[in-house]
Amino acid sequence: MNTFGRIFRLTSFGESHGRGIGGVIDGCPSGLSVDFDLIRTELGRRRPGQTALSTARNEADEVELISGIFEGKTTGAPIAFLVRNTDMRSQDYDYLKGIFRPSHADYTYHAKYGIRDHRGGGRSSARETIARVVSGAFAKMLLNSMNISIEAFTTQIGPIVLEQKDSTQFSSELAAENPLHCPDRETAEAMMSLISQVKEEQDSIGGMVSCVIKGVPVGWGEPVFGKLHARLAEAILSIPACKGFEYGSGFDLSQKGSRQNDAFYFDGESISTRSNNSGGIQGGISNGQTIYFKAAFKPIASIRIPQETVDKEGVAVQIQIEGRHDPCALPRALPVVEAMAALVLADACLLARSKELKF
Amino acid sequence: MNTFGRIFRLTSFGESHGRGIGGVIDGCPSGLSVDFDLIRTELGRRRPGQTALSTARNEADEVELISGIFEGKTTGAPIAFLVRNTDMRSQDYDYLKGIFRPSHADYTYHAKYGIRDHRGGGRSSARETIARVVSGAFAKMLLNSMNISIEAFTTQIGPIVLEQKDSTQFSSELAAENPLHCPDRETAEAMMSLISQVKEEQDSIGGMVSCVIKGVPVGWGEPVFGKLHARLAEAILSIPACKGFEYGSGFDLSQKGSRQNDAFYFDGESISTRSNNSGGIQGGISNGQTIYFKAAFKPIASIRIPQETVDKEGVAVQIQIEGRHDPCALPRALPVVEAMAALVLADACLLARSKELKF
Amino acid sequence: MNTFGRIFRLTSFGESHGRGIGGVIDGCPSGLSVDFDLIRTELGRRRPGQTALSTARNEADEVELISGIFEGKTTGAPIAFLVRNTDMRSQDYDYLKGIFRPSHADYTYHAKYGIRDHRGGGRSSARETIARVVSGAFAKMLLNSMNISIEAFTTQIGPIVLEQKDSTQFSSELAAENPLHCPDRETAEAMMSLISQVKEEQDSIGGMVSCVIKGVPVGWGEPVFGKLHARLAEAILSIPACKGFEYGSGFDLSQKGSRQNDAFYFDGESISTRSNNSGGIQGGISNGQTIYFKAAFKPIASIRIPQETVDKEGVAVQIQIEGRHDPCALPRALPVVEAMAALVLADACLLARSKELKF
Amino acid sequence: MNTFGRIFRLTSFGESHGRGIGGVIDGCPSGLSVDFDLIRTELGRRRPGQTALSTARNEADEVELISGIFEGKTTGAPIAFLVRNTDMRSQDYDYLKGIFRPSHADYTYHAKYGIRDHRGGGRSSARETIARVVSGAFAKMLLNSMNISIEAFTTQIGPIVLEQKDSTQFSSELAAENPLHCPDRETAEAMMSLISQVKEEQDSIGGMVSCVIKGVPVGWGEPVFGKLHARLAEAILSIPACKGFEYGSGFDLSQKGSRQNDAFYFDGESISTRSNNSGGIQGGISNGQTIYFKAAFKPIASIRIPQETVDKEGVAVQIQIEGRHDPCALPRALPVVEAMAALVLADACLLARSKELKF
Repeated sequence: MNTFGRIFRLTSFGESHGRGIGGVIDGCPSGLSVDFDLIRTELGRRRPGQTALSTARNEADEVELISGIFEGKTTGAPIAFLVRNTDMRSQDYDYLKGIFRPSHADYTYHAKYGIRDHRGGGRSSARETIARVVSGAFAKMLLNSMNISIEAFTTQIGPIVLEQKDSTQFSSELAAENPLHCPDRETAEAMMSLISQVKEEQDSIGGMVSCVIKGVPVGWGEPVFGKLHARLAEAILSIPACKGFEYGSGFDLSQKGSRQNDAFYFDGESISTRSNNSGGIQGGISNGQTIYFKAAFKPIASIRIPQETVDKEGVAVQIQIEGRHDPCALPRALPVVEAMAALVLADACLLARSKELKF
Repeated sequence: MNTFGRIFRLTSFGESHGRGIGGVIDGCPSGLSVDFDLIRTELGRRRPGQTALSTARNEADEVELISGIFEGKTTGAPIAFLVRNTDMRSQDYDYLKGIFRPSHADYTYHAKYGIRDHRGGGRSSARETIARVVSGAFAKMLLNSMNISIEAFTTQIGPIVLEQKDSTQFSSELAAENPLHCPDRETAEAMMSLISQVKEEQDSIGGMVSCVIKGVPVGWGEPVFGKLHARLAEAILSIPACKGFEYGSGFDLSQKGSRQNDAFYFDGESISTRSNNSGGIQGGISNGQTIYFKAAFKPIASIRIPQETVDKEGVAVQIQIEGRHDPCALPRALPVVEAMAALVLADACLLARSKELKF
Repeated sequence: MNTFGRIFRLTSFGESHGRGIGGVIDGCPSGLSVDFDLIRTELGRRRPGQTALSTARNEADEVELISGIFEGKTTGAPIAFLVRNTDMRSQDYDYLKGIFRPSHADYTYHAKYGIRDHRGGGRSSARETIARVVSGAFAKMLLNSMNISIEAFTTQIGPIVLEQKDSTQFSSELAAENPLHCPDRETAEAMMSLISQVKEEQDSIGGMVSCVIKGVPVGWGEPVFGKLHARLAEAILSIPACKGFEYGSGFDLSQKGSRQNDAFYFDGESISTRSNNSGGIQGGISNGQTIYFKAAFKPIASIRIPQETVDKEGVAVQIQIEGRHDPCALPRALPVVEAMAALVLADACLLARSKELKF
Repeated sequence: MNTFGRIFRLTSFGESHGRGIGGVIDGCPSGLSVDFDLIRTELGRRRPGQTALSTARNEADEVELISGIFEGKTTGAPIAFLVRNTDMRSQDYDYLKGIFRPSHADYTYHAKYGIRDHRGGGRSSARETIARVVSGAFAKMLLNSMNISIEAFTTQIGPIVLEQKDSTQFSSELAAENPLHCPDRETAEAMMSLISQVKEEQDSIGGMVSCVIKGVPVGWGEPVFGKLHARLAEAILSIPACKGFEYGSGFDLSQKGSRQNDAFYFDGESISTRSNNSGGIQGGISNGQTIYFKAAFKPIASIRIPQETVDKEGVAVQIQIEGRHDPCALPRALPVVEAMAALVLADACLLARSKELKF
């Protein structure tokens, strides 16, 4: 299952230490001007080695756009792209060939497939998210043309939690000041200190992403099994290390219905709601308010601290994971979260349009 | 989008106050003995009016199995079923015809479709979950034949939280003692008191479901875009009122990687893990450990307390929602959560089998 | 695989001698006025016992519309429908329980599923086409609103072939005069005589359907794997007894490219073609010309003449197939061909619309 | 719609004069030994310039396997591949930029997408079939491991028709002697003479492919909307220039049911049929007999003979199509037909396996 979407569809391929990572975008409407800078920018945000917070693996991540574009515009044909792997050190992984790293996909891949490209995590590597970021950039181009914005923020690292709760009011300017894209200076600094400390400990730490989507019109999302938030959850939880998803009031069960319900009112132009506990989605369909959700990322499983595990014969071994690994999935997960949200929205947009017939 | 699944597929149909609710199960293997009692039991758990905690609407919910069964066994042909609506009081909804109830799908359906069956919520009613419960019973029959069990518990109502955290150790016996299926007597009583009180206040309250799945073999779930937990999230968040999903350690970011990682060991028979923060799923694929997840349900939006809203012309109105409504989505959501989990697992099982070729 | 379509989708269910035949239409746009007469008319055309040419099984085929319609219009919710079986004589089939009728699906179903509803062909019965005719009527309503017409004609019965080749010029008036809907009086009479004779011989005979679709705008159909003609072929060949499909010049290979090619010209209003060997489809996409195709139906496999076969133990037996069977799939296949074509077109229409964005 | 298949899936991409043609195979089981020679052989059969019968465009068509393979075996991860375009002469097409070639996809692509890569046919070029041939080679590897063979023959060129009708008895040895893979020497020579003559006339001619599939076990194919022959028809009609498909007795309506029906008998080992008018498929499911079908290919639309047409403003122009074009789609379509059949069968195999559970 390497395809995501119903109309605007991404098919992803590639391994961490194979020839490269790529994808095919099918169903992108024709006539869209390709924003090559956006693709580069998004890849840059995902790329390792950009800040002191992330691994030193430093690949240029040059994307080759293979098909579907003519004279700077999409043609409606599938858009294939490829980012070649260049800065691989596969020998770093030789000692892991028959060993299952704790909380990685090594054991399950081995059991399921009987064969496994162990180099750098192979197919299960987070390097696969390159395919999402590139395709997400195309989805963003589509959404940008409708003045829809998607922005992901870091709102928690380990026990350090951003105090400001209302993500619809986050300051993009403040967030732009720090590499974690956290909309508060002091919190950001505390988070960065913690990540640095964890890195020195050769350990890892989890974090929370809050994503805010503005400008989505009423009517996107399909009832029952195509609910917008359910599609978002599936998309976001497909990102490596993501363990939880909530939208709107989410896991906060402290309020009763009388407080929780979002009262409708007419704001002079359209129907709006006084509160937004629904997170911009009601009955699975966007209601015109800001959409927001949160996603939890566990600590990266690759740590240098020695760990107990077994090899494929079941023999106990102790390992120390070498290679270049981030101490925290954030901030590099931020553009991936945005990309997956963009894919969901572009797809929902096209599906909604297909049935907007007037009789 | 009223179809769920890739091989084992449910197509759901019906409205709250139309002729009935039903579905078609396609892809169920042939030769499965139909456990008619199980279907009735599951429907009974979902049915209103079973306990003091739920609405008084009391329909027999007799299911007619229309096709796909011959001499008590599935034939491989689609299994269609229908539960007719009988105890409807559509006139209860007449005053709501042009009015948008807060935090309901009224406004979004109206905006998306231009026409809306307003009676009892129409298609957006939680009565649609009957289709899931019946099809889930068939999925459970399939899973039962492999000794896989799925059990959902109530672990939070409003601010009342079950103290026991490790859901893999919940006592089914204790849970069976109370209608909320909460595995602790005192907590259950406190929860029930709160629900009763909220009901008297004509208000509503949210709750948490913890679901535990035992016996799933290694290898179910597909990498990248068919991850088992992402499919579960999509399925569970398709249930009305569900706002969040987490599996394994989920939103708990307190531990570092060195504590969070699940060490592998050989237990004498197979490879196992010493902890289970992964929630039985690694890289999107089941690892043979117990699978567990949590789902948050918001307070039911239908409350008797007067609320401010607008009608479809945008004119402000005050409403008091009549009709028969539960003060809490739990416990009736429990069999629905189990059913959706069963659908995901049955589908993952068949998909995994399709590619288990030996060369 | 009982679902057809990508956006406008039919899920079919039911067996010949079970409780009934039905289906669920998902993805039909909202606001479409339901033409109940059209549904009845189409079912009437498919129903046995309408002419001397078909079986005496005479069921009212009353359709119950279960969901998705409110105040005479579609709501966007799935439209479920059911036609109950009433005039069954299942005991007619008792002697066939363990026997494989030649050129039927008995043996393959038995081998594939291990269990088989043998009564009246069960799921493999042509009675299943009721689901297509009802859903096709909804697709026709959608197409009618765009002034698109679909009309199927009988153009061959056994060796009797209609002389007129250009199906785009067939006379609907002449066709309406005879039950075969053959656009030529003398040919129709010869065909009907042949069918009557074959019926007396207790044998069966094949026939050809030519289908003509007018009014489809340019641009429906998707390149490469969603070609309009390939979808039509799949749809038409899913009808029981259909053995071949061609569109445009089809199997006629007598002309060279210089004669075969359809020259473009500007007709004063739009770009048109001087000939139409392309059958209205170029590169898989409608070009605005009339679409036409042909479908071959083999002789009905059920004949009264004694036949050699085996039972499920492989023991040779002679059978004489009782029950009520048509000597020819035509004319009853005509509305089914139209219905499948309508489903393909409605789906192609919605898919084309989804990507018609202007940037 | 550039994806084909339900479990074993091909996603195709690329244009004739872009960077290359490629694809992604998703769902191929793991552990399959990759037969690199087979891929090369199949590409060689499809490549132009192999015989005097085809165009002089002569590209090495070197395939790069990008992902999904480790140590010579498939890993279960998506297999991406790319064949770069090298021998392009895009300037040959400059004069065609705004002109619609007769019976090509130029006009429909222009109307549908508003933008068109006109160079060499762009996405609608038959060069896209490279993606099918490479993926078909993987499907063949899977089928070969089960001793299933697929062989396509030329059985008609223009008016020259092979006399031998029973394709299940065709001689592979005789066919191997001539480039058309026609199983009769004299017919092959007459066909080749005709093609040469047509080529000199700067015209083109159509042809027929007969495809024979041996070794498919009973039980592949899904009833109603996944019928094996309907899937084959969709697949084969997705090949450029294909206008018709028939299987088994197909369009031959000369026989009555009593002659047409395939009597079952027990051959000592299994249940077999005395004749095979069913073409190896009954009720959409393989019955263990040889599967055979025919496909008609129209004359190639690109001819050097001057033709009347219009440009995108509707102005009449005369064109003479330069570039390197085959006078006949055969024999180069043969490996494409085999590839598409292989994709359908591999997919049907995996789908059938998914539901083979014993209870």
